[in-house]
Amino acid sequence: MQVRSILRILGLLVAVFSVALLPPVVLAWIYGDGGAAAFFLAFLLSLFIGFILWFPNRDRRADLKTREGFIIVVMFWVVLGTVGAIPFWMPDNFSLSFTDSMFESFSALTTTGATVLTGIDELPHAYRFYRQLLQWLGGMGIIVLAVAILPLLGIGGMQLYRAETPGPMKDNKMTPRIADTAKHLWYIYFGITLACTLAYWAAGMDLFNAVGHAFSTVAIGGFSTHDASIGYYDSWIINLICVIFLLIAGANFALHFAAFRGKSLRNYLHDPELRALLAIQLVLILICVATLLVYRWYDGVGQAVTHGMFQAVSIAITAGFTTEDYSAWPVFLPVMLIFASFIGGSAGSTGGGLKVIRVLLLYRQGVRELNRLVHPKGVFSVKYGQRALPDRVIQAVWGFFAAYALVFVFIMLGFIATGLDDYSAFGATVATLNNLGPGLGSVAANFQDVSSAGKWLAILSMLFGRLEVFTLLVLFTPTFWRG
Amino acid sequence: MQVRSILRILGLLVAVFSVALLPPVVLAWIYGDGGAAAFFLAFLLSLFIGFILWFPNRDRRADLKTREGFIIVVMFWVVLGTVGAIPFWMPDNFSLSFTDSMFESFSALTTTGATVLTGIDELPHAYRFYRQLLQWLGGMGIIVLAVAILPLLGIGGMQLYRAETPGPMKDNKMTPRIADTAKHLWYIYFGITLACTLAYWAAGMDLFNAVGHAFSTVAIGGFSTHDASIGYYDSWIINLICVIFLLIAGANFALHFAAFRGKSLRNYLHDPELRALLAIQLVLILICVATLLVYRWYDGVGQAVTHGMFQAVSIAITAGFTTEDYSAWPVFLPVMLIFASFIGGSAGSTGGGLKVIRVLLLYRQGVRELNRLVHPKGVFSVKYGQRALPDRVIQAVWGFFAAYALVFVFIMLGFIATGLDDYSAFGATVATLNNLGPGLGSVAANFQDVSSAGKWLAILSMLFGRLEVFTLLVLFTPTFWRG
Ligand SMILES: [K+]
Ligand SMILES: [K+]
Repeated sequence: MQVRSILRILGLLVAVFSVALLPPVVLAWIYGDGGAAAFFLAFLLSLFIGFILWFPNRDRRADLKTREGFIIVVMFWVVLGTVGAIPFWMPDNFSLSFTDSMFESFSALTTTGATVLTGIDELPHAYRFYRQLLQWLGGMGIIVLAVAILPLLGIGGMQLYRAETPGPMKDNKMTPRIADTAKHLWYIYFGITLACTLAYWAAGMDLFNAVGHAFSTVAIGGFSTHDASIGYYDSWIINLICVIFLLIAGANFALHFAAFRGKSLRNYLHDPELRALLAIQLVLILICVATLLVYRWYDGVGQAVTHGMFQAVSIAITAGFTTEDYSAWPVFLPVMLIFASFIGGSAGSTGGGLKVIRVLLLYRQGVRELNRLVHPKGVFSVKYGQRALPDRVIQAVWGFFAAYALVFVFIMLGFIATGLDDYSAFGATVATLNNLGPGLGSVAANFQDVSSAGKWLAILSMLFGRLEVFTLLVLFTPTFWRG
Repeated sequence: MQVRSILRILGLLVAVFSVALLPPVVLAWIYGDGGAAAFFLAFLLSLFIGFILWFPNRDRRADLKTREGFIIVVMFWVVLGTVGAIPFWMPDNFSLSFTDSMFESFSALTTTGATVLTGIDELPHAYRFYRQLLQWLGGMGIIVLAVAILPLLGIGGMQLYRAETPGPMKDNKMTPRIADTAKHLWYIYFGITLACTLAYWAAGMDLFNAVGHAFSTVAIGGFSTHDASIGYYDSWIINLICVIFLLIAGANFALHFAAFRGKSLRNYLHDPELRALLAIQLVLILICVATLLVYRWYDGVGQAVTHGMFQAVSIAITAGFTTEDYSAWPVFLPVMLIFASFIGGSAGSTGGGLKVIRVLLLYRQGVRELNRLVHPKGVFSVKYGQRALPDRVIQAVWGFFAAYALVFVFIMLGFIATGLDDYSAFGATVATLNNLGPGLGSVAANFQDVSSAGKWLAILSMLFGRLEVFTLLVLFTPTFWRG
């Protein structure tokens, strides 16, 4: 294990990250409502931490092996989550306990969007902005890791996106060098965020809120600068903008990358995962709107359409924004949407959950078995696009699913042990492991009333979700540390 | 499709089944508390139904193909479930609505053990006995189907038990002729039931109740002749007898078969599934007892041990007997046991759930993926016993798991649509799909308050569980009916 090379990389990351603590300082100065000291001290502290990690190891530029790749990916989230918590924890006119600071920071960075705060509208602008910024940076991290790094580690079928897959990857082979890929992903991510900001701004948000909400929309994070979330604006046009950008951010960024490099939109049309994602969202929207209309839940068709569409996409794609308390919706709508969050966004998007492509492959494996039962001698393959997938990839997806289910059960039992009732424990597990944000029962709105142990378990669960379970799980195996 | 050959077989089945309606007539005569007319009329009616199905087709002895095998297996449960409902429905001094009769009959026959009845202690002896008998017959049907027929149909990895598996099958190849296999399974089933009856009798039950409870114990059915279930006896020795026979009935009957033929107990020791089953039960017992002791839930260690042991095994192995209201137990015990019922008994046992062997294979596939992540070039196989399993079998297990999960979600949403709250809907789905019996929330004790639509959905769910999901699901595919 090349510990010093890993420390060097983490040091650089923390140093770069510390720059993100400066815009809140500027905002605190502009608005004069506090937080300047906290953020400036946090900036100095994290710059210092980055320096002492990097400086002694600055010459350690070794080639890293797969094993070190896992450590770096896990440490990426753990170290940045911890450093990101500093401003919340710094004593100022606003500050949180250590546990709450960590919870808020990890929830933001993993784009989960669960919170321990209320009265967000009254917080200093520096903090309101910083929470959104953390989500945006987290989203950027997810994209780079998921598109450029996790496939190299072979996590849960993601290698599908390396070379085996047809469509975008085959026609426009992704630039092999990670740095170059990351740079282009950054342009795309920035471009989509800019477009989203302008759209929100044009639709009536002020610039501060437009930027803030664009950050958490593109990151599928779900944090808002208002307690009432997107519902604060009570505007169907803002709802629609949010839904459109959630769908864009819920697509695989490798697709955006291919479109960007190839200057063609054809790839989008032929991607099976994107088509499945859009089909799922459409069906959920139709079910929600139809049910709300049948139950006459809102006065007029317009309300049912705008809220039905918004909440269906926001929950199913694991954003967690709200315009309405969907958990009070009639019959099976709340549970259906919560279940849909297990599907989540595409692989290589900022969404959470199992990811559409995996669910698609699981489904097709089920269909294959049915066909095999009827025709025991027949040869059936699981297809993705035009191509039969190698069994190796499908096995990886199944292994992923088994691990996800197992981790889910243990975390849910853990939440019950920390004092949550069964229903809330289920909600808390879905909210954190799927990186969704809002839960059910006592954690439907926030995690304020959860015990400290429960909050730490939530942090672990968010990490499991964001690290595609396996990346974290592998560190607990003896094989990993042997030899 | 050889419809007339199928009708001939079903006719024979119904005719044979009708004999089961005579013992209750005798009991009604002995105890003189009613039901004689209902059961005798039901006997005549089902004998007649059997005859008109069989007689016109009595010469149709064709070789049946796989496809007809599926139809027969599904119809086995549907037809016997329906015929079995007749006595409940017959107007007498006790009778149920059509829906309730069907519910009670299917719940009994599929060894689910959910009920719409209360005041069971006051029912005529004929009915009290008949419910137990239906479970016992259902258990027998499960064993024959699971050990001798489903493997031929290739359902969800059960082909593992045909020829591919080491251990009992290899050393003592199962008699290829189904009829012969069935005969020997019957001896074994009868022998275990007899032993269980004598044990209960010796422990203090009267003969009527000893037979009745032996029926539902060996069938892992969970029905009792008392509202208070096994708790009625308040006897640690009866609890222990029940647990021991549940574990015997929760083992694969192919193991008992091999031991019976080979006169050796060695097979038991080397069977990976049985070892896993016992290990799981032991861990659950320890967790339950320890938690009950820590929380000082009962006065004295004895109570905690007997109830902890009893409820852990009864719920986890999907029997559903109760001595205590375990759903009120502290922290995560209720949810843990409910989750454990997803594992259930062994394949080829009378237990429900996913079955131990499948969960074992899913777990090992998860471990294989972890190993592959650390050593991407390594070759890892999923082992069962000493032998690496062919990928084909593992894929079948995964397909099964995907179908199970999908069916679970749809049935749970269906229960919500029929008016159950989210928590009870989850409980009702677990109770029926896992063939467990008792649920949570409003269906914790019985299904009396469920709407008619909900009861029919419960029947469908029990069938899905008992038919290993795929057997029923395959009938809904276009491929099945084509050509
Ligand atoms: K989220
Ligand atoms: K049962």
